[in-house]
Amino acid sequence: MAIAKGPQAFPRAEFLRRLSAVKAEMGRRNIDALIVLDSSNITYLTGYTSLSGYVPQGLVVSMDEEEPTFILRRQDTPAAIHQTFLDRGKIIGYPEALIGNPDKDGFDAVIDYIAEAGLGTGSVGLELSTLSAPSAEKFKRRMPDAKIVDCTRAVAWIRLVKSDLEITVMREAAAIADAAIMRAAEVIQPGVREADAVAEILGTLARGANGKPGTMVSQISLCSSPRTGTSHIAWSEDVFRKGSQINLELAGVRHGYCAAIMRTFSIGTPSERLRRVHDAQAAGLEVALNTVRPGVTCSDVANAFYRTIAQAGYTKESRCGYAHGIGWVEPTASLKDGDMTELKPNMVFHLMLGNWIDEDFGYVISETFRVTDGGVEVLTSAPRKIFEM
Amino acid sequence: MAIAKGPQAFPRAEFLRRLSAVKAEMGRRNIDALIVLDSSNITYLTGYTSLSGYVPQGLVVSMDEEEPTFILRRQDTPAAIHQTFLDRGKIIGYPEALIGNPDKDGFDAVIDYIAEAGLGTGSVGLELSTLSAPSAEKFKRRMPDAKIVDCTRAVAWIRLVKSDLEITVMREAAAIADAAIMRAAEVIQPGVREADAVAEILGTLARGANGKPGTMVSQISLCSSPRTGTSHIAWSEDVFRKGSQINLELAGVRHGYCAAIMRTFSIGTPSERLRRVHDAQAAGLEVALNTVRPGVTCSDVANAFYRTIAQAGYTKESRCGYAHGIGWVEPTASLKDGDMTELKPNMVFHLMLGNWIDEDFGYVISETFRVTDGGVEVLTSAPRKIFEM
Repeated sequence: MAIAKGPQAFPRAEFLRRLSAVKAEMGRRNIDALIVLDSSNITYLTGYTSLSGYVPQGLVVSMDEEEPTFILRRQDTPAAIHQTFLDRGKIIGYPEALIGNPDKDGFDAVIDYIAEAGLGTGSVGLELSTLSAPSAEKFKRRMPDAKIVDCTRAVAWIRLVKSDLEITVMREAAAIADAAIMRAAEVIQPGVREADAVAEILGTLARGANGKPGTMVSQISLCSSPRTGTSHIAWSEDVFRKGSQINLELAGVRHGYCAAIMRTFSIGTPSERLRRVHDAQAAGLEVALNTVRPGVTCSDVANAFYRTIAQAGYTKESRCGYAHGIGWVEPTASLKDGDMTELKPNMVFHLMLGNWIDEDFGYVISETFRVTDGGVEVLTSAPRKIFEM
Repeated sequence: MAIAKGPQAFPRAEFLRRLSAVKAEMGRRNIDALIVLDSSNITYLTGYTSLSGYVPQGLVVSMDEEEPTFILRRQDTPAAIHQTFLDRGKIIGYPEALIGNPDKDGFDAVIDYIAEAGLGTGSVGLELSTLSAPSAEKFKRRMPDAKIVDCTRAVAWIRLVKSDLEITVMREAAAIADAAIMRAAEVIQPGVREADAVAEILGTLARGANGKPGTMVSQISLCSSPRTGTSHIAWSEDVFRKGSQINLELAGVRHGYCAAIMRTFSIGTPSERLRRVHDAQAAGLEVALNTVRPGVTCSDVANAFYRTIAQAGYTKESRCGYAHGIGWVEPTASLKDGDMTELKPNMVFHLMLGNWIDEDFGYVISETFRVTDGGVEVLTSAPRKIFEM
């Protein structure tokens, strides 16, 4: 029996709007067909969020067709029919013989489709950075008559400015992130195992907020004493202790869209060292957010932060954040010195102010914000304090 | 201040044993240095499980040095010092200027290290399939005097046979997976939102079992009616209903090692159709497991399953599983027709018998097993039944 379409996170018109933007870019680059391989880009253009991207799959956007064609493992086609706005005729499953096969894989099916669709002699865009070296070789070898154009990040740059519908979804994700931070503040207690606190935090990320569940759970980082100088450890097998500091980074997720937040927790009164860093960083956060408005550059926002903490004698080596949306980090604009990307309304960033000051000491705070017509809307809203327990 | 070494999941001798096996393979391939890029391979050779692999990093194994050298983002070096067995002198941080930079990235730091270590004129192994096409180009361009040898899967093939220490960790992971299945059987009830059940399941995956917490939480797939023909949807925003069927796949994780399991749940009495599939598949599972012993091939195990369900009139298109360990799927042996890999003691597989029979109907059951000297040890142990609630 046929599987029915599921509820869609966005109306068809929204996907067609996104595809129009992609086709306009293809026009600028003189491309007849674009092969989209990056999972986040596929989510953006179709609504597909099923976790099948560990095997090859590709979405072919053709100038001549309203809807793109999605070529993926046959086992995953029912999910594509169910989750995406695509007509079922636009979803092509490739056989299982291409899985775990040293000689052929799903990219051969994508290449076969390009040939069958008569696109093999035109100009074909490819996300080369998403493709492994041998796979890129295969595309070149098996499409000898195509002019291959590297379109790495072409779709990602379009994702940078969100629609109001996307902003609504990111607000929902941000509310989930806030709820998880508040849950962390309840469950981080001396004598509790980190894993038990994480269980509650993950539970909140799944249950969601305001009646909107999380639709996926992204990895969290819980870096506690003596690991506050680290940034990407999931958690440890330790038990929280009196005097421990805990740096927490997490994101709420709705329909692939992430909204991230970081907060620092202290079991007992924070040390003078921690308090001083917090004061400087929270002031820097405020100044950076006040800098945000259309026309300002990413570099301006970062430098507003850097200048403010410098007044208190601090530096931060890492960038101050990145474009934010589907799949957490978008690989385009960075809030860093020298990134001259101009802010536009409905760009969203994770203003990531984690500062790993010493090998054994760091502090984290962050917000997810949207650029508005006249300034900034901060999507996350947990209190900007060191949470004390 | 310096960060201290954390508790290690494996003793130094275990990592040196793994490195010896890698160096023996390098010897066979006449390679002076191997650049390991795959995150799971880096975990295998160092104990590093921090989630920093979304930016470039590389582990250089040199024939002349006992310990490899780990080049990664400076921000992540404290985690590498803390988590790995490596001497801190073997951990090299590259500066933040290489992040979000269109011209240079962390692979430039790896290449610089190769030159400084005097390895740039020798034979250098590279996991080309792990590397994007432009990055592979960069390695070739910036190491013009090196003979580059593709070593994709060289380390992965060594991972295929586990040590007893690894098996112990995978038994712990399997116990967590079992606990999560049993928790699912408690919380899947009519009227409950899928997300609320998932919250409890994820909580169990974090809390762990037998006093051993999960050290990470892998994505789960909860595909309920009308989505039982799909295999990789995380979960939906639906509420469980009387008559619903739920296909659940998850894994316990300890120190990077996954042990996966699948079970099918039914709210109310299973349909005759579901019961018949279950009986055939459970019989096939039994026969496949009874086939497992050293010397038998992956193909033999898969065909034992295929033959058994064929007697009941069923087929299964997808493979019957894959080598299993760090990072879930190992990209080497598959339990499929024609894979002539011979089973050896302490190989571990996820015998993945999910069968997506129709677009709107599928059934799942699986076990994680180890090959023993004389047969099989099934690491997962939840009841092999349709869970009815």
